[in-house]
Amino acid sequence: MDSGRLEAFSDGVFAVAITLLVIGLAVPQPGREPLGEQLASHWPSFGAYVVSFLTIGIIWVNHHAMFRNFAAVDRVVLFLNLLLLFFIVTIPFATATFAAYLRQRGADASLAAAIYEGVFLGMSISFGVLLWWAIRREHLKVKLTSAAARSAMIRFGGGNLAYAAAIGIAYLSPLAALVVSGFLAVYYMFEQTPTAGAAAAGEESRSGAGE
Amino acid sequence: MDSGRLEAFSDGVFAVAITLLVIGLAVPQPGREPLGEQLASHWPSFGAYVVSFLTIGIIWVNHHAMFRNFAAVDRVVLFLNLLLLFFIVTIPFATATFAAYLRQRGADASLAAAIYEGVFLGMSISFGVLLWWAIRREHLKVKLTSAAARSAMIRFGGGNLAYAAAIGIAYLSPLAALVVSGFLAVYYMFEQTPTAGAAAAGEESRSGAGE
Amino acid sequence: MDSGRLEAFSDGVFAVAITLLVIGLAVPQPGREPLGEQLASHWPSFGAYVVSFLTIGIIWVNHHAMFRNFAAVDRVVLFLNLLLLFFIVTIPFATATFAAYLRQRGADASLAAAIYEGVFLGMSISFGVLLWWAIRREHLKVKLTSAAARSAMIRFGGGNLAYAAAIGIAYLSPLAALVVSGFLAVYYMFEQTPTAGAAAAGEESRSGAGE
Amino acid sequence: MDSGRLEAFSDGVFAVAITLLVIGLAVPQPGREPLGEQLASHWPSFGAYVVSFLTIGIIWVNHHAMFRNFAAVDRVVLFLNLLLLFFIVTIPFATATFAAYLRQRGADASLAAAIYEGVFLGMSISFGVLLWWAIRREHLKVKLTSAAARSAMIRFGGGNLAYAAAIGIAYLSPLAALVVSGFLAVYYMFEQTPTAGAAAAGEESRSGAGE
Repeated sequence: MDSGRLEAFSDGVFAVAITLLVIGLAVPQPGREPLGEQLASHWPSFGAYVVSFLTIGIIWVNHHAMFRNFAAVDRVVLFLNLLLLFFIVTIPFATATFAAYLRQRGADASLAAAIYEGVFLGMSISFGVLLWWAIRREHLKVKLTSAAARSAMIRFGGGNLAYAAAIGIAYLSPLAALVVSGFLAVYYMFEQTPTAGAAAAGEESRSGAGE
Repeated sequence: MDSGRLEAFSDGVFAVAITLLVIGLAVPQPGREPLGEQLASHWPSFGAYVVSFLTIGIIWVNHHAMFRNFAAVDRVVLFLNLLLLFFIVTIPFATATFAAYLRQRGADASLAAAIYEGVFLGMSISFGVLLWWAIRREHLKVKLTSAAARSAMIRFGGGNLAYAAAIGIAYLSPLAALVVSGFLAVYYMFEQTPTAGAAAAGEESRSGAGE
Repeated sequence: MDSGRLEAFSDGVFAVAITLLVIGLAVPQPGREPLGEQLASHWPSFGAYVVSFLTIGIIWVNHHAMFRNFAAVDRVVLFLNLLLLFFIVTIPFATATFAAYLRQRGADASLAAAIYEGVFLGMSISFGVLLWWAIRREHLKVKLTSAAARSAMIRFGGGNLAYAAAIGIAYLSPLAALVVSGFLAVYYMFEQTPTAGAAAAGEESRSGAGE
Repeated sequence: MDSGRLEAFSDGVFAVAITLLVIGLAVPQPGREPLGEQLASHWPSFGAYVVSFLTIGIIWVNHHAMFRNFAAVDRVVLFLNLLLLFFIVTIPFATATFAAYLRQRGADASLAAAIYEGVFLGMSISFGVLLWWAIRREHLKVKLTSAAARSAMIRFGGGNLAYAAAIGIAYLSPLAALVVSGFLAVYYMFEQTPTAGAAAAGEESRSGAGE
């Protein structure tokens, strides 16, 4: 079973989820405070919106890169991918909840931040398990050396630990947790799946051969 | 007519429907009860959300598997597929209605649960008719023996009976109906379309031949 | 320029528009009338929902059939297709407006029905112009005889007239206009684009040649 | 890395964003003013809706044309494309905000218009940078002469200047800013990416070679 339709369906879910984020942004209404003040007071929504957009965007890039190197898709991969999508789809809800509570103080704000980071952790773990399964079952077109595989798992495991830490940070400062998520998105921007790097290298040599 | 664009359109509808489920989750607001209590009191929404996500996800996997084995798509298939999509698209509405009434008692809760199960039954019957039509018109790439075809129809018919039974169960206990739907999703997770199994086996032997 | 990405984008728009229809269905809430009564009083929403779903679904099928026979896509086709999509995207709004006024009496109900039929008319005209342009510019893979082309334009023109008539009917009875739209959807279900029929016939002979 | 999946994901985002615009249109309700008056008083929503639809539609056409000429997609392209999509996804929010304030007077209306034009400017700049990067890194299938490249950058730079000017115009008259955006959409309708023109010319000669 090739990965074409899995990617098409996933692309659809990623695209809808990333666009639905915007529904969480309350449209300002005339007759209340001046527009500038309304927008300024909504900064938590905009901050959480940017971080969530970046996170979904980057995980899509890495998803894309990972599946390009998938030689085969078995039923376990389909369901692990569904699990990943479950967390992706939940992000707009977690984002809106976080944004609603970010300016509050106390336990509620921390809980909202912890849920937000928890959804990201679930997403990150699902991604790691998908990668681990693919390496273990040798589903990849370009096989990794065991050193490369171990290094990949360590780096992605590191991301998981960081999201887990962000849950703890949420109880110190919800805003700090948001900032940490922003940095993690940037981290994954530069952290390619090793398989993608390898595949890219492999394909480089046959570039020009056309599509 | 090949099934490529039918699958692309269906993937889009599945992807939007599965993501729209999240719109049914009411975002908690500060200034009411504590966040934890608000979320706890929303458990019917989360429960129905998970079951509906799983059901759409699994029917997508089976849809995917079935169409991979379609050699041809005629106009009847297009319309049967539209009928299936009609029920898929209705799931977010049925889920939100069910969630709103799940904690109520009496006739309304039962009716909401019965509607929810009824939409699943409609989806399941459409899927079965699509499979039956494909077998009957010999649209499949890998032909089934008549024993395999009968066995397939019996197993999918069993799913239909189970959803029909869940409508009855809804009148005993709405929550029990939700649990039954959850189990049915897990059942279809392991119950492949026979054609998928056959096709997978057929393709296994030419694996490695590249895309 | 081949039509692949135009179809992918259009499929996305069709899929989102058909799924967004469900957002127009107000989720019943406990604490008001019994659920059964609430649903019964929402029948205009359900009726308009079914007709709009069917209409978008059938126009997608015909869109699919038409573009399968497109040999080339020029910039005019891209913009005519955008015009068609403009009307498709407006359908959820027109549907919700119509449903809100269907049970009212008088001028408002007629206007809401006329807008609804007007959007369908716009969709139908755009589709006809697209087909006419393709025939005129000889963009089709399978050329039509001029008799076939004329017959096609007459039959699609007939659909346009029917939608125009439905705008008039809206001023006699909004409900009758809805029923007429339902019948028109069923009409287009059986009325293929001639090019589709021709192409299908053409492809029939090379069926079995693989994908 | 070929651009197939990038285009599929982008198409999804474009399709959802263009369809979500309709959610910004408030559905009229019976029991207030007559329907005709309600619709007439909503003209800013309809105007902004049409301009935004046209703008997203045209940028999609140009995106389509540009990526058809991409020989390779590197990680920088993926992230520049994400930046472009960020502005696309924000358009429904900016449109709804603008529509809410368009009939107001004074600073708020100007700010809402400036935000609307600012989102378009961001979109336009991202698009220009993407094109510039592709030319600079020689990612294009059909290389441009340096004169053609300079002319392309000037023309797209002109679009950017026009959107920047529209931000200024917003402070003179919000409505004028909307009209300017409408004209810009029409301008980009006729202004092809040069690479698209070149590629089209290149492909013209091999037309008929089939898919």
